[in-house]
Amino acid sequence: MRRSEIRDLLKFTRQPDLISFAGGLPAPETFPLKEIENICTQILHEKGALALQYGPTEGEYVFRQQIANWMAREKPSIKPENILVTSGSQQGLDILGRVFLDPGDTAIVELPSYIGALQAFTAYRARLIGIIQDDEGMRIDLLEKTLDKYAKRKKKPKFIYVVPDFQNPSGVTMSLDRRTKLLKLAYKHEIPVVEDSPYRDLRFTGQNVPPIYALDKENQVITLGTFSKLLCPGLRLGWLMAPIEWMDRMVVAKQAMDLNSPSFTQLIAAEYIKRGLLKEQINNIRTLYKKKRQLMLDALQKYMPKGVTWTKPEGGLFLWVRLPRKMSANDLFIKAIDNKVAYVIGSAFHCNGKGQNTMRLNFSYASDAQIDEGIKRLAKMIKENMYPT
Amino acid sequence: MRRSEIRDLLKFTRQPDLISFAGGLPAPETFPLKEIENICTQILHEKGALALQYGPTEGEYVFRQQIANWMAREKPSIKPENILVTSGSQQGLDILGRVFLDPGDTAIVELPSYIGALQAFTAYRARLIGIIQDDEGMRIDLLEKTLDKYAKRKKKPKFIYVVPDFQNPSGVTMSLDRRTKLLKLAYKHEIPVVEDSPYRDLRFTGQNVPPIYALDKENQVITLGTFSKLLCPGLRLGWLMAPIEWMDRMVVAKQAMDLNSPSFTQLIAAEYIKRGLLKEQINNIRTLYKKKRQLMLDALQKYMPKGVTWTKPEGGLFLWVRLPRKMSANDLFIKAIDNKVAYVIGSAFHCNGKGQNTMRLNFSYASDAQIDEGIKRLAKMIKENMYPT
Repeated sequence: MRRSEIRDLLKFTRQPDLISFAGGLPAPETFPLKEIENICTQILHEKGALALQYGPTEGEYVFRQQIANWMAREKPSIKPENILVTSGSQQGLDILGRVFLDPGDTAIVELPSYIGALQAFTAYRARLIGIIQDDEGMRIDLLEKTLDKYAKRKKKPKFIYVVPDFQNPSGVTMSLDRRTKLLKLAYKHEIPVVEDSPYRDLRFTGQNVPPIYALDKENQVITLGTFSKLLCPGLRLGWLMAPIEWMDRMVVAKQAMDLNSPSFTQLIAAEYIKRGLLKEQINNIRTLYKKKRQLMLDALQKYMPKGVTWTKPEGGLFLWVRLPRKMSANDLFIKAIDNKVAYVIGSAFHCNGKGQNTMRLNFSYASDAQIDEGIKRLAKMIKENMYPT
Repeated sequence: MRRSEIRDLLKFTRQPDLISFAGGLPAPETFPLKEIENICTQILHEKGALALQYGPTEGEYVFRQQIANWMAREKPSIKPENILVTSGSQQGLDILGRVFLDPGDTAIVELPSYIGALQAFTAYRARLIGIIQDDEGMRIDLLEKTLDKYAKRKKKPKFIYVVPDFQNPSGVTMSLDRRTKLLKLAYKHEIPVVEDSPYRDLRFTGQNVPPIYALDKENQVITLGTFSKLLCPGLRLGWLMAPIEWMDRMVVAKQAMDLNSPSFTQLIAAEYIKRGLLKEQINNIRTLYKKKRQLMLDALQKYMPKGVTWTKPEGGLFLWVRLPRKMSANDLFIKAIDNKVAYVIGSAFHCNGKGQNTMRLNFSYASDAQIDEGIKRLAKMIKENMYPT
């Protein structure tokens, strides 16, 4: 099983003197410990019995209101009734699999795509069709061909899954032109678009591009969000935003999964936003990650041999490295571990098993010194293995 | 869809002057608010970065250790490696569905059985076979016939699901003799037993019966537990305990569902147990629920007309009422709401849609005065509808 292979690989990365660019962890120094402590005390005093009791499957209404306000910044019509609170956005993916996918169904994903989505969807025995990404995001010309082909067979893919902003794993942002064309195709073929957007608020540079849900005029977009990268992952809080007419199926699916997400953590996050702390927190995170991204880009420029290329993401947590076509990041992985540096193999993000010459690097977690030293080690190892010895 | 029908019914029960025996809510006055506040502060001070970060899918090791110790009281060989932390035991049911059930598979449940389990399993399009329960639990003679029948067809049910202690919904406890016979049959047919045990520690009266996992000698039992009824439901923490060789599949399933349960809430619960507070908490809950159960039994005795019978559970949160055979608790539901009292219709717990003359009553949540008044209203309404007018 591919996913347990990756689990096994990641076990190597827990060695103490190893520099890991493999995880997707936010920087723990950004976690607002004091504010959360203060909020915990307030919640337990003011509404402890509510916080520690079962809650509605949809989520605590005060929390759904805060999320709806947040999402309404870019589309004023969003209401709390469009929001289903999820246990991290991974659960949002699981719910979409449950609601949309039967064994043998197809769904469209990007090449590469977020590994957790591939896992969630294949758990429902769906067949995933990958559409290549370039610097502007998913190649909509190729998507069109694929959709036309499936339309002829009268077997429509159940949805089109994209991570449009600072994609995990590639760091690429989908252009406005592509977003518009994606929606047009989705309308034409009547296929829902799933917009997975965990990093959207973490832009460091460049021009803001409207989210797909804000461009949608026909209620055909489902958006997944999460507080894991904005506040902290340990509360495990995300949300699924969908047109009202789809919500009931989503809620029923979640009910069978875990009844409801913890009221306690929901009330903590709701109060955190209500206090107006989220914007400042996001600014702090942006400043920190922008610096770390620059350190990694500088180190790549300084150390990497010719023939190695990488993306220059305008936000998020990840960038994407391409080795010369005949090199294999999979084969090099153990050597990298021996050299005390780790990455995630790019093929893990490819639903077709390709991308052997690619790797994902995370720049949010390692310290500044580790970023320079880690890229140095990685570059040295790549250089040594570039030509058969 | 049956489950959304029940959701709709439950919406009626939120009227302010209605006395609801419909929910399954623990009494909020038992929630240890001060201790949890104190523990939150400690956790955020001592290991805030860990508490608010992503954690291992299996769960925080310190928490798994505490759970393993708890479960080892009745089987010393239990290790932390047998424990997977889940987001409530509902997620444990979802994981079992994911791992064991393909569309068209069969699984054995009790008649009646926990509605959340029926929902979780049917979400995987399994066909559920119900085995009637009597005062000693599942009728093992009928189970044997069913298993023999399926053995001849060479289509083995994937597991046998039971709630052996103070069952939800019936309040019935499975006798030791039945537990032993159940295991023998499970060994003979090589079918795993799923022991769902949320109420086990809430015994008020009668003799303790060993849990099925403690009787198991062939590593063929999976046990689900939860802190929802012992500590509070709002942390959404449960666990799945299984033989080591099954753990990897369970962990991979959970990973695709929500990556991991919140480290924060896990560390809170772990510290709560470590401080030795759980036993006293359980004693308090037992004392309270024992009193409430007695109040409800007394009220039933006092008000119910002849022909109505009910179980006398030795623990847990629920009891089970049987109306005369030709009466329908489903038909009476709206009348009960009109009379400002609510229950859950018994047929909702029957995978075969039967049990129309039964209802589930919860005695843990309503106040003492409400219990007497609510049963009085219910009895009056039943009496008025007993014979066609």
